[in-house]
Amino acid sequence: MENFTFYSPTFFVFGKDTESQAGEYVKRFGGTKVLVHFGGKSAKSSGLLDRVEASLQKEGIPYVTLGGVKPNPRSGLVYEGIDLCKKEGVDFILAVGGGSVIDSSKAIAAGVVYDGDFWDFYSGKPIEEALPVGTILTIAATGSEGSPDSVITKEEGMFKRGASGNAIRPKFSILNPALTQTLPPYQTAAGITDIMAHLYERYLTNSKEVEVTDRLIEALLLTMKHEGPRVIADPDNYEARANIMWAGMVAHNNTCGVGRSQDWNSHNIEHELSALYDCAHGAGLAVTMPAVFKYVMNHDVNRFAKVAVRVWGCQMDFDHPEVTALEGINAFQNFLVSLGMPKNFEQLGAKAEDIPKLVDVLCNGDGRTGSISGFVTLNEDDCTKIYEMMV
Amino acid sequence: MENFTFYSPTFFVFGKDTESQAGEYVKRFGGTKVLVHFGGKSAKSSGLLDRVEASLQKEGIPYVTLGGVKPNPRSGLVYEGIDLCKKEGVDFILAVGGGSVIDSSKAIAAGVVYDGDFWDFYSGKPIEEALPVGTILTIAATGSEGSPDSVITKEEGMFKRGASGNAIRPKFSILNPALTQTLPPYQTAAGITDIMAHLYERYLTNSKEVEVTDRLIEALLLTMKHEGPRVIADPDNYEARANIMWAGMVAHNNTCGVGRSQDWNSHNIEHELSALYDCAHGAGLAVTMPAVFKYVMNHDVNRFAKVAVRVWGCQMDFDHPEVTALEGINAFQNFLVSLGMPKNFEQLGAKAEDIPKLVDVLCNGDGRTGSISGFVTLNEDDCTKIYEMMV
Repeated sequence: MENFTFYSPTFFVFGKDTESQAGEYVKRFGGTKVLVHFGGKSAKSSGLLDRVEASLQKEGIPYVTLGGVKPNPRSGLVYEGIDLCKKEGVDFILAVGGGSVIDSSKAIAAGVVYDGDFWDFYSGKPIEEALPVGTILTIAATGSEGSPDSVITKEEGMFKRGASGNAIRPKFSILNPALTQTLPPYQTAAGITDIMAHLYERYLTNSKEVEVTDRLIEALLLTMKHEGPRVIADPDNYEARANIMWAGMVAHNNTCGVGRSQDWNSHNIEHELSALYDCAHGAGLAVTMPAVFKYVMNHDVNRFAKVAVRVWGCQMDFDHPEVTALEGINAFQNFLVSLGMPKNFEQLGAKAEDIPKLVDVLCNGDGRTGSISGFVTLNEDDCTKIYEMMV
Repeated sequence: MENFTFYSPTFFVFGKDTESQAGEYVKRFGGTKVLVHFGGKSAKSSGLLDRVEASLQKEGIPYVTLGGVKPNPRSGLVYEGIDLCKKEGVDFILAVGGGSVIDSSKAIAAGVVYDGDFWDFYSGKPIEEALPVGTILTIAATGSEGSPDSVITKEEGMFKRGASGNAIRPKFSILNPALTQTLPPYQTAAGITDIMAHLYERYLTNSKEVEVTDRLIEALLLTMKHEGPRVIADPDNYEARANIMWAGMVAHNNTCGVGRSQDWNSHNIEHELSALYDCAHGAGLAVTMPAVFKYVMNHDVNRFAKVAVRVWGCQMDFDHPEVTALEGINAFQNFLVSLGMPKNFEQLGAKAEDIPKLVDVLCNGDGRTGSISGFVTLNEDDCTKIYEMMV
């Protein structure tokens, strides 16, 4: 196990009707003028936004609102949010939505207190200061509610890039599983896939002797394996939603990722797909992961065999561990397909003729120099072959 | 799953040589005059205390020291620490030791800023304010390094009682697994037992539909099952020590205990043993848990069968789940015995003739009224039978 630091100071409020406490928590964490940032119409039509605003009013906290965050959130709205916050003297950002809304909120929070272009943070500059952010989560997926991370797409060039820093960790996050019951099945499944990707990206490590985090990751994968089909079959199943929601947070606050190198190549390879085709990130991951895993599995075949046995219930083939490893990857892909996820470019809406462009942006865009690194370093040729496996 | 809040803001610094950063972290968390609180001679003789003091000196932070914390820490030294801190104007408590030192430090931290008797907090008064506490952990066991809890024994009457409050959560905790390599095997095993007890106390729940936390608990139990024998066989095994140390923290910061009722009857029943006989808490738990589990297993036999199958590798007897449940309890006890833990009163140094006294203090001491509650409510008759099973 490698040396590490771990810090997860977000205050989590979990359960039914907890969004009515939003005002109380904004006050507790020092907000006196709030930007309520949200996505599309569902936050309004479901009455959620009304309940959140009523909760702020009850505490006498003034606020302004900014909606319109789209999946794969864009830099344009971030600039707009920064301007609005400066103009209105906002000192607290309240994100009401999923990972896109939260990530957009984090970008605004960092940008408001920075004199330069907020995109600097998405080009490698560490975030050291930001307005406080609180969240009310409406989909279990990105884990952004408990993470120091944010991913934004820059409209010029459609670069999708991440930034990170403890300053943008949410001060509090309100998680009411009931709010996720109205999600369409496809979005629910995409969220489940994203959570499982966060687990696999941590599982694929070159660090040795990391049994405790291996076991924690496996525990969360087993939870998703059990609860995923239940929630797709019965979208109103609060209990299954609740188990998935807490798993989604723990999967990404790094409790199970400390002291080990991590991968994140699948995320990077997928980011180019969702940036270009605007597909759901989770759906892109469902197509990406099996291809990446098959391509890299011989780098550490026993690691893939281990997750096959412990999570997917495969029998270990001690003479041919590569058979077990592959069986586990196929079981994972079949599981995702059973939830309604796509399995190839066509189902995703991606095009084989774009592969050279995807590879070029992936490996050379925004400061990279011909490869991406993680569990295995992948150059342009590797990435081309991986995208071709998805066709 | 039940509604809950979760808050674990401690900054963890994990790995080799990390104790040399103590001064830096005291400074980061606002300490300007420190009480370095520690236990016996080993902190001195190992050179640990020298390294910690050097680190404070390097940052120019003045300090006073107070050693002498014993296992099952006593109220007398807490009063002494409170007086010393007030006299010296201490504003930060740095605990260098195991759970006893940390718990004693937390009690001092709460007592210094309170006008009344600190024991009020151990009689039910919530702790709302305290000096900041930092820790340098030397044994993986109590999880006190990441918890809001403290257990102290009052010398008058030998009551062993707990207190809790976010104010006494450590601001930072430094976890260097190498510091635990010099522990005698018996103490190592007692620590492992305590960690597993924290997991079982959470596993024994009356809440339904808690798959995610069940799975996380099982993951940590599986880790202990794997790493425990390795570290007993090879005390210098840093990697096994590291996995146990992180498991011990996660086992008790409540990541795996949220949204579910918990038990804690085994802890309560054991506390009377370590209070009266001054045995190691973990050793007491090794004797207590199997008796408690056998006594209560019919309350939810499938829960005991589940941990038997998932953790102890038992085959499910679908016609007779109670057979599997019992097999799992026996496997757990055999595991603890294999690590060197006692299995009965005699090996623990306890006496059958004291049972009436133990039961009376347990069920009627310090405000209780004839029973203890948890997974199952246990009255004096139940507790008598449980202690008798341990003889």
